[in-house]
Amino acid sequence: MFHLFSKLLTFKNYYLRSMKSIVLLGAGNVATHLCKAIYNSLGFKVIQVYNRNENSLAFFPSALDKTYSLAKIKEADIYIIAVPDDAIVSFSESLLIKNKLVVHTSGSVAMEALSDKNRKGVFYPLQSFSKNSEVDFSEIPMCIEAQNESDLGLLNQLGNSISNNVLAVSSEKREKIHLSAVIVNNFVNYLYQVGNDLMQEQSLSFDLLKPLILETANKINTLAPAEAQTGPAKRNDKKTIEKQLHLLKDSPYKDIYQDITNSILKKYNNH
Amino acid sequence: MFHLFSKLLTFKNYYLRSMKSIVLLGAGNVATHLCKAIYNSLGFKVIQVYNRNENSLAFFPSALDKTYSLAKIKEADIYIIAVPDDAIVSFSESLLIKNKLVVHTSGSVAMEALSDKNRKGVFYPLQSFSKNSEVDFSEIPMCIEAQNESDLGLLNQLGNSISNNVLAVSSEKREKIHLSAVIVNNFVNYLYQVGNDLMQEQSLSFDLLKPLILETANKINTLAPAEAQTGPAKRNDKKTIEKQLHLLKDSPYKDIYQDITNSILKKYNNH
Repeated sequence: MFHLFSKLLTFKNYYLRSMKSIVLLGAGNVATHLCKAIYNSLGFKVIQVYNRNENSLAFFPSALDKTYSLAKIKEADIYIIAVPDDAIVSFSESLLIKNKLVVHTSGSVAMEALSDKNRKGVFYPLQSFSKNSEVDFSEIPMCIEAQNESDLGLLNQLGNSISNNVLAVSSEKREKIHLSAVIVNNFVNYLYQVGNDLMQEQSLSFDLLKPLILETANKINTLAPAEAQTGPAKRNDKKTIEKQLHLLKDSPYKDIYQDITNSILKKYNNH
Repeated sequence: MFHLFSKLLTFKNYYLRSMKSIVLLGAGNVATHLCKAIYNSLGFKVIQVYNRNENSLAFFPSALDKTYSLAKIKEADIYIIAVPDDAIVSFSESLLIKNKLVVHTSGSVAMEALSDKNRKGVFYPLQSFSKNSEVDFSEIPMCIEAQNESDLGLLNQLGNSISNNVLAVSSEKREKIHLSAVIVNNFVNYLYQVGNDLMQEQSLSFDLLKPLILETANKINTLAPAEAQTGPAKRNDKKTIEKQLHLLKDSPYKDIYQDITNSILKKYNNH
């Protein structure tokens, strides 16, 4: 019995030693959700979280080492930068570590933009994160990129430890993916907001639109968007289009209505 | 025992006699889904389906009376027109019945546009229907309208027999609801299509965007669209906007990107 126990301990020590270590740089939504996902994964452990603002670190597990000093950042296998897009480049320059694998998590920033002091990589989760909603990483496509094969292999391992969908993409492809993400996430959410505003103008609840919004999104699981397309512009129903443009005549959203309608007309009715 | 049985039969006859009868006029998606929902409801029964094209009627239950002749349309309490929007007015004129309650199911057609030969009403389900996807009517807002109180009462009963969310709205309000529906359904689906096209240009699968699309839609259950808004335009990130416009410089979707971005900039950054 003791023999078995000591064997298990040896295995545990071996396992812990063989685990790859990660330092998270940043304390926003992406860092928070990544930290949780990696915590529950096999083969990788977060050994430290850095943020220049100490207060934001309070939301991370108390057992985790935290620092707000660049000088105190620990030795690790992977450093993951999860700061706002426009701060990534200067932040990567400010790091004191050298010749390490440093990756960012942004869709729109090129890998090459990272500081030359370290080996560069990207670990981009194709998803939108909010503070209070749980995220199932297993479904999230992880777009990875690295300067050399062995770093790419390590990021591939890390990706596979939290997701079932890891793909290596170049910075060039990634920026097109990010553009698509802006359109189906930020722009779509903005159209929800337009719907919300139009309903409120009529003292009607946005809740009335929710079943339709959810059905529209769920349809992509069974129909290609081109097959699911319906509406006045699709069927070239000029009377309804005219009427709706008239309803929007004093609205700030008239241009959006006109442009999307024109684009649908062009695609389906050769206008 | 025999006594109880005969009592039950009497009750059954009474119940069947007291059920309100419905004739469905049309055989498309709305008619098909309404037929199913009313079949499973209490207090109402579909006694006949009319369609000028006999072949489309084959998909309705065989036990149901079907006709393609206007002259053979039966006596009923409610006639529900579910034909394409631009055919509603002329179709309502072509009916041979008189002084009956005839309603249409369209979001965009005014109640008054129906023929004066019959009592007018509207029974508009705020949802988008496709042939092959099941629909839970209990969640669908049913927008009803009628010329007189007793017809409105009957439509309210019918609405409540299939949905938990029935509301009386004027034609004027309904056309604003329909406009909102076009935006959060048809326009949103078109943005999915734009995302699809951009991904395919890179030989990437549209599937990669699906978790993001579903998360974006599900967020409306916990956050108002204004709270959920993120992205380059929301944070006034001019560099990313410029880069994405450049990516779209030869794309037919550039105008849509520019307009929605301008609208978000105006709303959040006083541009």
